[in-house]
Amino acid sequence: MTRVDLNSDLGEGYGAYACGDDAAILDLVTSANVACGLHAGDPEIMARTFALAKEKGVAVGAHPGFPDLWGFGRRRIPFSPDEIERLVAYQVGAAQALAAYAGHRITYVKTHGALGNIAAEERSVADAVARAVRAVDPNLALLAIALSAQVAAGDAAGLEVHQEIFADRGYTEDGLLIPRSQPGAFVTNPDAAAKRVLRMVQGGIILTASGRELPTPIRSICVHGDTAHAVATARAVRVILEGGGVTLAPFLP
Amino acid sequence: MTRVDLNSDLGEGYGAYACGDDAAILDLVTSANVACGLHAGDPEIMARTFALAKEKGVAVGAHPGFPDLWGFGRRRIPFSPDEIERLVAYQVGAAQALAAYAGHRITYVKTHGALGNIAAEERSVADAVARAVRAVDPNLALLAIALSAQVAAGDAAGLEVHQEIFADRGYTEDGLLIPRSQPGAFVTNPDAAAKRVLRMVQGGIILTASGRELPTPIRSICVHGDTAHAVATARAVRVILEGGGVTLAPFLP
Amino acid sequence: MTRVDLNSDLGEGYGAYACGDDAAILDLVTSANVACGLHAGDPEIMARTFALAKEKGVAVGAHPGFPDLWGFGRRRIPFSPDEIERLVAYQVGAAQALAAYAGHRITYVKTHGALGNIAAEERSVADAVARAVRAVDPNLALLAIALSAQVAAGDAAGLEVHQEIFADRGYTEDGLLIPRSQPGAFVTNPDAAAKRVLRMVQGGIILTASGRELPTPIRSICVHGDTAHAVATARAVRVILEGGGVTLAPFLP
Amino acid sequence: MTRVDLNSDLGEGYGAYACGDDAAILDLVTSANVACGLHAGDPEIMARTFALAKEKGVAVGAHPGFPDLWGFGRRRIPFSPDEIERLVAYQVGAAQALAAYAGHRITYVKTHGALGNIAAEERSVADAVARAVRAVDPNLALLAIALSAQVAAGDAAGLEVHQEIFADRGYTEDGLLIPRSQPGAFVTNPDAAAKRVLRMVQGGIILTASGRELPTPIRSICVHGDTAHAVATARAVRVILEGGGVTLAPFLP
Repeated sequence: MTRVDLNSDLGEGYGAYACGDDAAILDLVTSANVACGLHAGDPEIMARTFALAKEKGVAVGAHPGFPDLWGFGRRRIPFSPDEIERLVAYQVGAAQALAAYAGHRITYVKTHGALGNIAAEERSVADAVARAVRAVDPNLALLAIALSAQVAAGDAAGLEVHQEIFADRGYTEDGLLIPRSQPGAFVTNPDAAAKRVLRMVQGGIILTASGRELPTPIRSICVHGDTAHAVATARAVRVILEGGGVTLAPFLP
Repeated sequence: MTRVDLNSDLGEGYGAYACGDDAAILDLVTSANVACGLHAGDPEIMARTFALAKEKGVAVGAHPGFPDLWGFGRRRIPFSPDEIERLVAYQVGAAQALAAYAGHRITYVKTHGALGNIAAEERSVADAVARAVRAVDPNLALLAIALSAQVAAGDAAGLEVHQEIFADRGYTEDGLLIPRSQPGAFVTNPDAAAKRVLRMVQGGIILTASGRELPTPIRSICVHGDTAHAVATARAVRVILEGGGVTLAPFLP
Repeated sequence: MTRVDLNSDLGEGYGAYACGDDAAILDLVTSANVACGLHAGDPEIMARTFALAKEKGVAVGAHPGFPDLWGFGRRRIPFSPDEIERLVAYQVGAAQALAAYAGHRITYVKTHGALGNIAAEERSVADAVARAVRAVDPNLALLAIALSAQVAAGDAAGLEVHQEIFADRGYTEDGLLIPRSQPGAFVTNPDAAAKRVLRMVQGGIILTASGRELPTPIRSICVHGDTAHAVATARAVRVILEGGGVTLAPFLP
Repeated sequence: MTRVDLNSDLGEGYGAYACGDDAAILDLVTSANVACGLHAGDPEIMARTFALAKEKGVAVGAHPGFPDLWGFGRRRIPFSPDEIERLVAYQVGAAQALAAYAGHRITYVKTHGALGNIAAEERSVADAVARAVRAVDPNLALLAIALSAQVAAGDAAGLEVHQEIFADRGYTEDGLLIPRSQPGAFVTNPDAAAKRVLRMVQGGIILTASGRELPTPIRSICVHGDTAHAVATARAVRVILEGGGVTLAPFLP
């Protein structure tokens, strides 16, 4: 029986600013990637998100990004790999503490936005992230973009690595995400996204823009939490997967 | 044989800004209270300070403060006790992670600046700090201003509590610190400060401005790291205590 | 013929975070108080808001607040009156520059959130705000909460002062706003709010919670931009005032 | 008679953090480039620096940088030219207001750190800076690194442009600054720096690393305010220039 995780970025508001419908998403996903206060999130939102995830039986991961609230972590701030190690360690620790405070427990780390993109592309940055995670807690898993540099980096660091695909993003012929600025970057129709996800999960493949199939061990599906279609896409994906006999569960016990 | 700890606030720079002579202070103290990034410190400085403390055999504690870099954590930002819990938990976790990253280990928590002052005065805030520490890690000790509200709060939370006196500050008749804005607030002469400390440590007392003696279990002495006299005072205190047969050692193993 | 201004706080998003429906509000108000980047707003949002206000013929004012993005300027950060002078001058200048950049022109200053509340209550802070405005540009007017300390302070500084009432807030017997935490603080029904505003504007009075009438020279009505009812309230106020023969126009030419 | 300006970056502290000996530098220079709060400086420091410059008869300019206090404005934050326009306008306006508040007046703009480097290299960014300055106040001059892209950009925007050389930096064969990471980047000996400056000013040339002479209209000399040798270099340059019959005066009346 196929089993897969459904993850989403949550807790991405800041102070008085809301971002996405976290409560609705938490009813649909099995893992929540929680922002750690530097690109989004604050201690209040973090604690609240961890408590709500605990209540709903959703696993939680730290979701560190660049220290760039203005840019929501989407600007490539020039940090060296060494600096990124400290930046990631700081945020993972803060998330662990607030999860513990809320009665929950961080089981994995997933990098956010520009930091995630660079870690997917550049092995030196992927290694920095993996080293930081291992230094803080070697029992933490790494949730990595499928086929990205983070997979090998996590393996090399001795971390448990789980690969994810994106429900609402198109893929290049190399299995990478089509950049947000290019045509085909997004799959906005929830049903189309859901059907595509079912095919990828059941086949153990990534579907490229041209229709090629790239074999990939898929352990999780990412649905974004901050788009207009977020809740609808998450629901459609959940329904179609369950209808297709796929069990939705966190990739970690 | 009397045994006492010597602690100082370190890692209080930010980015390109230096603050105090941390390397010199680390040669003199036995415990370093390390800023956690919200009122001072950044992940680079934190990791460097933890690594240097490890190298020199100095114990390390998390030193959380209000999120107020501009005010260096000295402004009383109106946070509720509940919010202070999350604020402290966040910072303690970040410090634990970077200490682990640097091969060291946080053994205690001491609140900084305005947060420290409020926690010393108001039991509700002292309780909030203690609850946060216990929630993150009940094995962490609390380093509390002697005779302050933090002592009872830490006890009530089941935390190990250690009381500290200040080498360079004058005391009111109630055993509280004379506010910075009032005469007698500071003892600026290193030798005078050292002699006073020796008398307090050997007698197990706090000396008030009028010369009264208040019995107090003194486990640590604080010397500030960011004043002009910091290194001289720390050295004078160390020399006089060792000359007086007092052993300097962290309050935790 | 009665003539009154309708103002609202706008440009209160930050980076990726939206706040309120500025475009809809700008179709209804005659003056926009624009956040200056320290409690909300960023240079992108400021420039965009000024440009849109210009396009729609809406007057613009600087809306400075405490440097507290996390608290949205609603926390009372302990700044001295002297520090508040510099804080206000900084923000007014930044707003003037971006308004000029967008082809528009700041004609007044209105303090935000906690800074506004303190300036309404404490004459020393009201004087600090007025001095800052005069120092930056004595041609700027002050938009002040009716009957507040800012009125006398603005007069004393030789500034043009305009008094405003709030469409969606209840008033104490002294003509002050009922605090947000107390019953009667808000008038959430748009029609009830509109009728009340018409009566106050036509009568030149503030209506207190008990129904007393306090004579007040009303030059502007504030409708908040960031509540759920904001657009509906602004529209209802506009419609009822115009129906009642009141002309809506900026208080400055 | 030759006449030249001596400028330095000042007001680069933040809150409790000091940076450089501003009072000593202000006794030596004729123009002060004042940080505007986003990479360094805060409203308190800005107002204090403007007041001190006024008292000492030193001209003042706005010194905008990237919003990166942690990186002291030295990281190349990826902002588009359009975004840089708003970023510069914001900071110039804030500086104008605080200068007016302190009884002084901004007469020019000089970009800081990474923003300055990019504006020197890339015409699109240089144009963005020039457009921002012109939009805020076309009477402001641009203080530009000699031979850089900012010179042509300022000319094209119709701004008064003044070219500066650096007293303590080496030059490539193209007349650009040798990057900080490369040998020959710095001239640390104050006397050597001073002699070199005299030769460049009297000859109207830039001296390259190989000894070539590049004719340049030099209107100002930059001495850095935050290095160990800052005060000594500024003094040596001042003494040698005055001894050589060069008049030191702001480039603007």
